[in-house]
Amino acid sequence: MFSKVLVANRGEIAVRIIRSLKELGIKSVAIYSTEDRESLHVQLADQAVCVGSAKPKDSYLNMKNILAAAVLTGAEAIHPGFGFLSENSRFVELCEACGLVFIGPRSETIELMGNKANARIQMQKHDIPVIPGSTGFLEDVAEAKQVAKEVGYPVLLKAAAGGGGKGIRRVDTEKELANSFNEAKREAQMAFGDARMYLEKIMENVKHIEVQIFRDDAGNTVYFPERDCSLQRNKQKMIEESPCALITDAQRKYLGELAIKAAEAIDYRNTGTIEFLMDQEHKFYFMEMNTRIQVEHTVTEMVTGVDLVKAQVKVAFGQDLPFEQADIKLLGTAIECRINAEDPAKNFTPSVGKVDYLYFPVGNLGMRIDSDLYAGAKISPYYDSMIAKVIVLGENRHEAIEKLKRLLSEMVISGIKTNQNFYLTILEDQGFLDATFNTDYLERVLLPEWKRGNADETV
Amino acid sequence: MFSKVLVANRGEIAVRIIRSLKELGIKSVAIYSTEDRESLHVQLADQAVCVGSAKPKDSYLNMKNILAAAVLTGAEAIHPGFGFLSENSRFVELCEACGLVFIGPRSETIELMGNKANARIQMQKHDIPVIPGSTGFLEDVAEAKQVAKEVGYPVLLKAAAGGGGKGIRRVDTEKELANSFNEAKREAQMAFGDARMYLEKIMENVKHIEVQIFRDDAGNTVYFPERDCSLQRNKQKMIEESPCALITDAQRKYLGELAIKAAEAIDYRNTGTIEFLMDQEHKFYFMEMNTRIQVEHTVTEMVTGVDLVKAQVKVAFGQDLPFEQADIKLLGTAIECRINAEDPAKNFTPSVGKVDYLYFPVGNLGMRIDSDLYAGAKISPYYDSMIAKVIVLGENRHEAIEKLKRLLSEMVISGIKTNQNFYLTILEDQGFLDATFNTDYLERVLLPEWKRGNADETV
Repeated sequence: MFSKVLVANRGEIAVRIIRSLKELGIKSVAIYSTEDRESLHVQLADQAVCVGSAKPKDSYLNMKNILAAAVLTGAEAIHPGFGFLSENSRFVELCEACGLVFIGPRSETIELMGNKANARIQMQKHDIPVIPGSTGFLEDVAEAKQVAKEVGYPVLLKAAAGGGGKGIRRVDTEKELANSFNEAKREAQMAFGDARMYLEKIMENVKHIEVQIFRDDAGNTVYFPERDCSLQRNKQKMIEESPCALITDAQRKYLGELAIKAAEAIDYRNTGTIEFLMDQEHKFYFMEMNTRIQVEHTVTEMVTGVDLVKAQVKVAFGQDLPFEQADIKLLGTAIECRINAEDPAKNFTPSVGKVDYLYFPVGNLGMRIDSDLYAGAKISPYYDSMIAKVIVLGENRHEAIEKLKRLLSEMVISGIKTNQNFYLTILEDQGFLDATFNTDYLERVLLPEWKRGNADETV
Repeated sequence: MFSKVLVANRGEIAVRIIRSLKELGIKSVAIYSTEDRESLHVQLADQAVCVGSAKPKDSYLNMKNILAAAVLTGAEAIHPGFGFLSENSRFVELCEACGLVFIGPRSETIELMGNKANARIQMQKHDIPVIPGSTGFLEDVAEAKQVAKEVGYPVLLKAAAGGGGKGIRRVDTEKELANSFNEAKREAQMAFGDARMYLEKIMENVKHIEVQIFRDDAGNTVYFPERDCSLQRNKQKMIEESPCALITDAQRKYLGELAIKAAEAIDYRNTGTIEFLMDQEHKFYFMEMNTRIQVEHTVTEMVTGVDLVKAQVKVAFGQDLPFEQADIKLLGTAIECRINAEDPAKNFTPSVGKVDYLYFPVGNLGMRIDSDLYAGAKISPYYDSMIAKVIVLGENRHEAIEKLKRLLSEMVISGIKTNQNFYLTILEDQGFLDATFNTDYLERVLLPEWKRGNADETV
């Protein structure tokens, strides 16, 4: 096994990875920015190297300094966590060039799945159902019109090389199509030097359902029970749960096998997650693949009892998967809330400052809080506002919700604002309780209701 | 289901019970002494009633005040926790007289198993192997001599009505027997008005193995995997684990069925634990039965995923057991350390004061800390020194030990002294690692070694 691993991340995920490394008897190297010198991940690691100043591009995205830190400390592998360099195929190549094992998939896979148009084409090739739309790239406006007519408006025109919102247009009627197509094409050519376009139907009344898979060098592939991540604000997941309360065992198996087929089609390595949309008839449509550990992997860990980060390290070292499909069993229902340092009353603007009092109510069964908080910790404006994940496991969904309510009502994080109490509103909502919520539910129903409730209070 | 339950206890067990009540949607009533007015259990309960001053006899043992609190707050049942009134059959009768459900066994059962001589006779009657010794009570010195000769010295002479160390004598040779017998008999007559005596062999090289059982009104009975509680100091358990690493599946089943037989023999209700000694040949000998939830029930909860306190409440309400024998499965190995406010360097004398900083490292899988601590909490000299239980669940014993080492090395409780670091010594010890330790191992081997190590450091 590796004797030393560098964790190229910060915050709760760095802490979480370092803890699993410790339990495996592997020394850990933390990296940090000048802003993070007192952070928990720095305190817990066996060694810590400052890789730059506060801004991510100077530190946590600073490939040269991170690779130098790994080489100089004698680390044999790098765990990227999520965000930052975790889906950067160039970084993976540089790791290889430095003789370091990247704990994740091969660079070609990251490259392939990172280009959303290519990922879609790849899946179509292997009969994985994708969101209705074009097959491959669109030749011209005429083809775009024909495809849009077939799948029905509204549609999304997307640049194949897209990113950052460039070369993307929502089109509601055929009248707008020609103009939008030509505009987006020009924009894509300017921004990416690649004018290729594709088209997808905008699906409504859908759930975000995702399936995590794991694959080793020997080709053993395992899927995990699906996660329902439909409760989102600004495309950011707020609550994740596993399993999805509306999906049957047969559908779970079908979806899992679909995910395995996709993973095998691209000769995937290590863990990754395939995101699907699920419509009202419980049909699934490939959306994209995340080629890294995700924030919400903890839900799957709680509901199956499997440590996914430990498995990542073992598989990256070349070991076989430490479990088989038959070992993956649902222990109940797990639900996670992401606690962010932000002020719901001020449109969720980030809150920074010092945590002056902390109480984590961690007793009793089925409670987990992954966090880098401690009394005295500082919340920085430079990084993501997620400061804790609270995860519960209940015998069933009802018990999980009761546990979560208890935990959220007992937890104390003072000195900064958080979205902790906003979750208590969600957990009482009927649409949440009956699990029928779709991806637009939080913004369309819950948030306006909550704002009205809050406005009443301040009168 | 009950709508309101009074918790007749304090500290971590009161907190733990209140939390399960909350998750069941049952209102909780805490009781407290004047000393405990800022305690966590008082803060978490829906209602709290002061039942007296600091000394246990004035508050947590004050039956009249506790019953009055229950009646006046409209509680329908009382959960006694462990210690205090939990094995007081008179209190159970008074609960019944007040129309309150006592969450535990019937008063007759508590009475029967509380008298250790009667419990032994009862088990012998039903072919449960007991510690070698007399059958029933001893007629005279001659019979004592004959039994002692049969089982072999050293032996323990015990008063049937014994308690508090009165009427008990260790006898190493036949010469001492007559004198000791007569002395103990006189002492028992004086102390209890009951001169009846019995005799047990003092067993050496044995493990303390116990089996928790659960039985409902319909007679459904389930056993849980055994706990090894052999690591003890001053007859107090320090580490408990489940399962015992040396016991085979077949032995587990045999032992479990033995425990069920014992529970059925006495028409047991609710949960209880049968304590056995296990010799080098893995033969089991009934020691005694605890007719209440125990400190270490949390180990069983972690290793099986079953909430035992919730089951207690359901069964006390008259519901069937919420699980069957086939549902009880080992999820791995669970280990618990009892964190006490005491100073190991000063022969474990209790430490009191204010907790001025607290860090509970609760992230990652399989971690649980049951505690009533918070930053600012006061540790009182009036009550038991146990302030937290740290419990881990690992895939196997090795992983559980690694988790425990990580947790103990990250946890911070400052302002008072605790035995936290002493456990790190134990967890590195070969006798602990190979699980061969017996009930005398901690005091015979570990403690002297640790003292030598500590003495070196202070030179």
